[in-house]
Amino acid sequence: MGAALCQKDTVSKIYWEDFAPGSVTEYGPRLVTREEIVAFAAEFDPQPMHMDEDAARATMLGGLAASGWHSCCLLMRMLADAFVLNSSSMGSPGIDEVRWLAPVRPGDRLTLRVRVLESRASRSRPDMGLVRFAYALINQAGTEVLTVSNSMMFGRRTPAA
Amino acid sequence: MGAALCQKDTVSKIYWEDFAPGSVTEYGPRLVTREEIVAFAAEFDPQPMHMDEDAARATMLGGLAASGWHSCCLLMRMLADAFVLNSSSMGSPGIDEVRWLAPVRPGDRLTLRVRVLESRASRSRPDMGLVRFAYALINQAGTEVLTVSNSMMFGRRTPAA
Repeated sequence: MGAALCQKDTVSKIYWEDFAPGSVTEYGPRLVTREEIVAFAAEFDPQPMHMDEDAARATMLGGLAASGWHSCCLLMRMLADAFVLNSSSMGSPGIDEVRWLAPVRPGDRLTLRVRVLESRASRSRPDMGLVRFAYALINQAGTEVLTVSNSMMFGRRTPAA
Repeated sequence: MGAALCQKDTVSKIYWEDFAPGSVTEYGPRLVTREEIVAFAAEFDPQPMHMDEDAARATMLGGLAASGWHSCCLLMRMLADAFVLNSSSMGSPGIDEVRWLAPVRPGDRLTLRVRVLESRASRSRPDMGLVRFAYALINQAGTEVLTVSNSMMFGRRTPAA
């Protein structure tokens, strides 16, 4: 093993074996600012309810709120900082479900809750396992604003025989 | 009706009634640059495969590729420009499925394909209807790189009696 690999593979790195079905972990909170809500919307989802307070008041959101895709991206960033960047992640085939349950407002402080639903070894790759997760972003009032579920692939600490 | 409302409600505005089940429409293409791939990743998904060519070569992506969430956001922006901003959209409850089928590379030109799967009136709101869509982003080689499906709510041109 080269020096670079040894440096990367610290003892704290998280592998497939470390995700225990049923476990629940919380991370955060993460403050959401008006500036980032408007900047995201201007680039990716320029609907008036994500851009302008006055226009937003007349919509079903009743006031300025983040694009639903923005809340997904905030969840991704919190996941990355929580464990993905320090894991043997091998990516994900996609997302199984996204539910936008309540508006994300400027000034909200979002907590990320990660639940491990299921874990299974790969049938085709002895060095890989799959983990199915349910994520939630929860605001300072305890309201779930976003739920997402998906599967991720991780390298195994000890490949199957 | 006030002047502001008349100005917004031009004859070209798209209502629930305008989405015909079975219809397929294409929009684009949209060029994806290295700069925006890296900028998105730095903010929302700072995994090495989305940030740095050398690091990306050693991953399952085989080279720098956009975050899967970035491709979702590009789809949202293309949808907004295609028809959402000029429609009676009342938002969406979420996403039913996302599949990241192939890497999105710097220099890719993505076409958006929108298929109307289903349309139904709201049972509770006579001024609203729901439309279920299947979207795909397709690169310049004809490869589907992303598929997404969801439902959106739209105001009706003519409310139910």
